[in-house]
Amino acid sequence: MKPPKWRIVVLRLDHRPERDKRVTTHIGLTARAFGASGLWTAGLKDLKIVESMKQVTSQWGYKRFEVITGVNWRHRLRKWKEEGGEVIHLTMYGLHIDKVISKIDSSPRAKLIVVGSSKVPIEVFKVADYNVAIGHQPHSEIAALAIFLDRLFQGKMLHKRFLDAKMEIKPTADGKRVKEPE
Amino acid sequence: MKPPKWRIVVLRLDHRPERDKRVTTHIGLTARAFGASGLWTAGLKDLKIVESMKQVTSQWGYKRFEVITGVNWRHRLRKWKEEGGEVIHLTMYGLHIDKVISKIDSSPRAKLIVVGSSKVPIEVFKVADYNVAIGHQPHSEIAALAIFLDRLFQGKMLHKRFLDAKMEIKPTADGKRVKEPE
Repeated sequence: MKPPKWRIVVLRLDHRPERDKRVTTHIGLTARAFGASGLWTAGLKDLKIVESMKQVTSQWGYKRFEVITGVNWRHRLRKWKEEGGEVIHLTMYGLHIDKVISKIDSSPRAKLIVVGSSKVPIEVFKVADYNVAIGHQPHSEIAALAIFLDRLFQGKMLHKRFLDAKMEIKPTADGKRVKEPE
Repeated sequence: MKPPKWRIVVLRLDHRPERDKRVTTHIGLTARAFGASGLWTAGLKDLKIVESMKQVTSQWGYKRFEVITGVNWRHRLRKWKEEGGEVIHLTMYGLHIDKVISKIDSSPRAKLIVVGSSKVPIEVFKVADYNVAIGHQPHSEIAALAIFLDRLFQGKMLHKRFLDAKMEIKPTADGKRVKEPE
């Protein structure tokens, strides 16, 4: 399968290692499954996140998926924009995805997708090129990211395979089967 | 907006209160946002999940969203099928969503959507009418549920509003606005 047409990185704000370990890992899994280049987390450094993503990529592929924790979000947002990329913040307060997705899709710019935690600084709303609501109901940032990426890639990315995988699933109607990649 | 055409309940297997509190709440938020009738969790009882969903529904609406924790999954699955419903288990090992979604969509049967934890008993794979893979990569059960529901409702459910909401979002390009429902 072709690589995604854009460089995409997911930035998770305000990661708190103990509390957010699993939620942030789910964000990382979602980013990887859709072929994003990497996951950055702001807040405290957290080697456990790096480690758990590494376990996944060493087995299922995509070892070059980049995980950086403890980044300075303000600095990263600024740099991303200076380098010509666009910033997409997923928030229930933003404009409905149905209104903005075709504009985002038609832009060739690299996409930094920002997902929040409970309190996102208003500065993020201002710096973002798009504040996108995956519906206007309170929701999960993991759900929001998944739906955003699924729609951005028009469903095609769910067929993604990774060349460096050691194991692949053999789809089955009612069991679990794993095989070596062909 | 019209109610969903099917009764849908999400069943989360093997909920462990401390470890899974946030992930299971995200599953509940996703289920609610898409208008499912409720969330059942198997494993230990957990009043915190009930409480946090209640906080959401009392403010944002859908107070009749049902949350039951500590259910016996085997019993619930059997009863659901006896009553004519179908069981859809989301798992990376199953058949690709693109292959089965139209069949699921065309069936009028009530849908129990089962999402797992790390180890799902093989019995669940056998009892399920469909084992559906939201792609064959390791992923988040929250992401899987969100994509499944978004596709099942062909994207329409992200416009859902709840009549008993005390507050609603006013979509904004770059800020946060909330209003009383009209």
